[in-house]
Amino acid sequence: MFATLKFAALLLAVVVCWATQDYDYNDAEIDEEPTLGDSPYGSLWPLPQKVQISTVVFKLSGASFHIFDAKESSSGASCRLLQNAYRRYDEYIFTSSRKQGQNKSKKALASDMSELQVWITSADSECDSYPSVTSDESYKLSVDSPVAVLKAPKVWGALRGLETFSQLVYKDEYGAKSINRTDIHDFPRFAHRGLLLDTSRHFLPIKVILANLEAMAWNKFNVFHWHIVDDPSFPYLSRTFPQLSQHGAYQPYTHVYTPSDVKMIIEFARLRGIRVVPEFDTPGHTQSWGKGQKDLLTPCYSGASPSGSFGPVNPMLNTTYDFMSMFFKEVSTVFPDAYVHLGGDEVNFSCWKSNPDIQKFMEQQGFGMDYSKLESFYMQRLLDIVTTTNKGYMIWQEVFDNGVKLKSDTVVHVWMGNKVEEELQKVTEAGFTTILSAPWYLDYISYGQDWQKYYRAEPLGFKGTDTQKKLVIGGEACLWGEYVDATNLTPRLWPRASAVGERLWSDRDVRDLNDAYSRLAKHRCRMVQRGIPAEPLFTGYCAHEYKGV
Amino acid sequence: MFATLKFAALLLAVVVCWATQDYDYNDAEIDEEPTLGDSPYGSLWPLPQKVQISTVVFKLSGASFHIFDAKESSSGASCRLLQNAYRRYDEYIFTSSRKQGQNKSKKALASDMSELQVWITSADSECDSYPSVTSDESYKLSVDSPVAVLKAPKVWGALRGLETFSQLVYKDEYGAKSINRTDIHDFPRFAHRGLLLDTSRHFLPIKVILANLEAMAWNKFNVFHWHIVDDPSFPYLSRTFPQLSQHGAYQPYTHVYTPSDVKMIIEFARLRGIRVVPEFDTPGHTQSWGKGQKDLLTPCYSGASPSGSFGPVNPMLNTTYDFMSMFFKEVSTVFPDAYVHLGGDEVNFSCWKSNPDIQKFMEQQGFGMDYSKLESFYMQRLLDIVTTTNKGYMIWQEVFDNGVKLKSDTVVHVWMGNKVEEELQKVTEAGFTTILSAPWYLDYISYGQDWQKYYRAEPLGFKGTDTQKKLVIGGEACLWGEYVDATNLTPRLWPRASAVGERLWSDRDVRDLNDAYSRLAKHRCRMVQRGIPAEPLFTGYCAHEYKGV
Repeated sequence: MFATLKFAALLLAVVVCWATQDYDYNDAEIDEEPTLGDSPYGSLWPLPQKVQISTVVFKLSGASFHIFDAKESSSGASCRLLQNAYRRYDEYIFTSSRKQGQNKSKKALASDMSELQVWITSADSECDSYPSVTSDESYKLSVDSPVAVLKAPKVWGALRGLETFSQLVYKDEYGAKSINRTDIHDFPRFAHRGLLLDTSRHFLPIKVILANLEAMAWNKFNVFHWHIVDDPSFPYLSRTFPQLSQHGAYQPYTHVYTPSDVKMIIEFARLRGIRVVPEFDTPGHTQSWGKGQKDLLTPCYSGASPSGSFGPVNPMLNTTYDFMSMFFKEVSTVFPDAYVHLGGDEVNFSCWKSNPDIQKFMEQQGFGMDYSKLESFYMQRLLDIVTTTNKGYMIWQEVFDNGVKLKSDTVVHVWMGNKVEEELQKVTEAGFTTILSAPWYLDYISYGQDWQKYYRAEPLGFKGTDTQKKLVIGGEACLWGEYVDATNLTPRLWPRASAVGERLWSDRDVRDLNDAYSRLAKHRCRMVQRGIPAEPLFTGYCAHEYKGV
Repeated sequence: MFATLKFAALLLAVVVCWATQDYDYNDAEIDEEPTLGDSPYGSLWPLPQKVQISTVVFKLSGASFHIFDAKESSSGASCRLLQNAYRRYDEYIFTSSRKQGQNKSKKALASDMSELQVWITSADSECDSYPSVTSDESYKLSVDSPVAVLKAPKVWGALRGLETFSQLVYKDEYGAKSINRTDIHDFPRFAHRGLLLDTSRHFLPIKVILANLEAMAWNKFNVFHWHIVDDPSFPYLSRTFPQLSQHGAYQPYTHVYTPSDVKMIIEFARLRGIRVVPEFDTPGHTQSWGKGQKDLLTPCYSGASPSGSFGPVNPMLNTTYDFMSMFFKEVSTVFPDAYVHLGGDEVNFSCWKSNPDIQKFMEQQGFGMDYSKLESFYMQRLLDIVTTTNKGYMIWQEVFDNGVKLKSDTVVHVWMGNKVEEELQKVTEAGFTTILSAPWYLDYISYGQDWQKYYRAEPLGFKGTDTQKKLVIGGEACLWGEYVDATNLTPRLWPRASAVGERLWSDRDVRDLNDAYSRLAKHRCRMVQRGIPAEPLFTGYCAHEYKGV
């Protein structure tokens, strides 16, 4: 159908019948499940803010098509970030169809799309910077013959636009790489679109983290929330306190992240416009810290004598704060992001209560029996320490709930499943920025298409003023590690996290489940073809099935 | 600890402290979950019927240790099945620790375990046969220095014993391959220990099927129930009716099983003592059959005229039975197993009811409005057809429930979740053999350690005589394919199916959850080390994490 319309006028109406896509997905008519029609938006995921797709089709020749810098661009051949991205997307677009030894200088036909020009429009492309919460990720993409133009103020928008461009390319019925005349103006709805991975409950090999950063970029996520340590293990190799991983990691050599591992992960993420926000959660969730750092944790008592087990960080010792000062000073230099996540969730008071020294300290401080005051006492001092490192901080909602005094740029992380809207109201009423994870705990699996549940969640569904709504800067999908390691993480995460990706990027009104199902099914097949074992949404197939086991 | 006890007397009590196993798994003490102590049975899975493990330890040298035929064995170097198995288990036992170029004739030390002799004791080893429901899988394994002896009447028992032997080997604290003096007498509790995979809802590449057959052997499963076709697709390439897959497969070239694929799968399974029982489910679940075979399905009516859609197989046409005769004649030659699974589940009557020709036929046959009589009419004729091919058949429980006359050797497959015990009572009271799947639908996933639920299920928990109980010949774990393909099948299956494997192999009294947890955690790490991405049971780690993504 396309082929015959090659030279028809540009139709501004958003209409395309993607009958001959590369990413087939069988109709699910047999079982009673969402209908799988073809979306007018093909396989775009997440859906851009403004899209106009015409029925005019151009071909991309593997011999002549290239992505390169527009000559007006403020960012040239010296920008490694963009050059890397061009190579990556050239590979995604042509997979195996660009044959070696082809004549690259072959003349393009009139109907060919011969190049994609990438034009960074602002004077500072930010090519060598790290992305931040204020990074401009907007872009405009105009696909026309013989040249497609991708304009973006910064490299971050160019990265998003390259992904979008690659999603517009499909194979026609003869297998020829094709793209429709298209106009897109795109920008994210929320600035913070994160994914939490937990490397403490199970160690995740570097390879797994990198693969998932790659998949994050395909879904326009821009924050890797690295829940790097927790009770079960401490895989972060600290230069200042190497004994922490020496004694706290599952294995001190094979199950750790060395400084160069961390550096590599941060750079790999940066090249994809992804921030790396590390979480060092205290004062709870710290059992593994105690193995390498004497006196850091509170000794629990059984009656009048120590039981031999330990509780949260000991908040009454000066040595605790000395340690934290040095530790977070290191963290602030290792991780370039402007924010560090300080945790502060789920502090169990029973050990503190059992300890006579703590009891005395409570009395001295006038805390009565309110151990949340002791928790706040600790958090307050910790926050002050981190402030001196010039980092902003994120904290789990309990820290706010307990009335700890927070810097105005603090990000409050809402995770508890009950009273979510009430919490969002309170946090924003108090003037704090916030991100939402409560509806997106992907570690909770269930039978069937649970991506729909994640997709339906609406971060601004609470009652509040426009000012309050603006304080919700995004959200994060969380994949806690109790039941997840390298064997099952990737298929469990994708495409379920993709649903969150679209909710955080696309317009609020983008919520048609049937349309989403059609696009997501194709998007997941694309992820599979690019090498990520994204699991199926339902009965069906991909033209190219996963090649691994 | 072991090393110092090398020459201590054989302790017949079953005691071992596996403090220095290769397959470490961290204690789960932090979160509130089953306690993970060390099992006296190490990493054995499923647990053999009778085990005696002493504290005396022998070493296995990669340079000198070999598995070979005992000279008294009825099966020699010409038995490809055993020679293949020796090579496989040598590799599993020594992984990367047997260095190339080592002097294989190096003299063994006195404390070394220098060889495992495999002794097939009955005159017919069955080396070149296919396994069957009556195959003898028993074996006796005596591990002593300098020779371990594995005695089995048939090759099938030898295969099971080789797996057990490999599970007894561990690394001591210096990394040396070690094994304790051990006596085992083992045999399966149930003869039919199956796994159902569904290659219709999603196509499973050959590689995935083979990998899972391998994992089945590690868990002592012996039946691959191949649910090869169903509504969504028909990947079986029939020589007689090639149009079935030509039109009914997702893709006629890439998403089919050719005759040589099928042959390879059957031989790969045979070499591991695994039967391949194909299921060609009719008269329902046949939408994909209709695409290549005209007039096979019942045309549905909307009012007075055909609606264009089709229902179950058309039971009133002679052409239907001509087709089935030819089709199952082919099936009976392609699949060597004595049984074929004929399905017969979930027949929807609405299409039959809508069709005026069927209504007339019902009248002629005197069925009144009872469409289950029509279903039985079809099944009866089908069973008679299959009987002429000299195959036995398995059927889903509805066929029995509807009163179809069955051959005495029919296996009734109980799958419905309600009234399971009642159904087992009825089926066995009627004198039929039966297998159970109702508690083991592994496609239903949930958060947490659901393996325990599968493990607790007891196939003989219903009220009945000893004769009735003997008719329960086993069970099958089912992994239906709605949400499963190559991307996520393997980690979703293992080690959850392992729980079913032990329930079907080990003694009824083997049901200590803590002991099982300890062994299974190690067994899953072993599967990971052997290359299968078996997912974690809970927080923890393996010494060798999965290397893929």
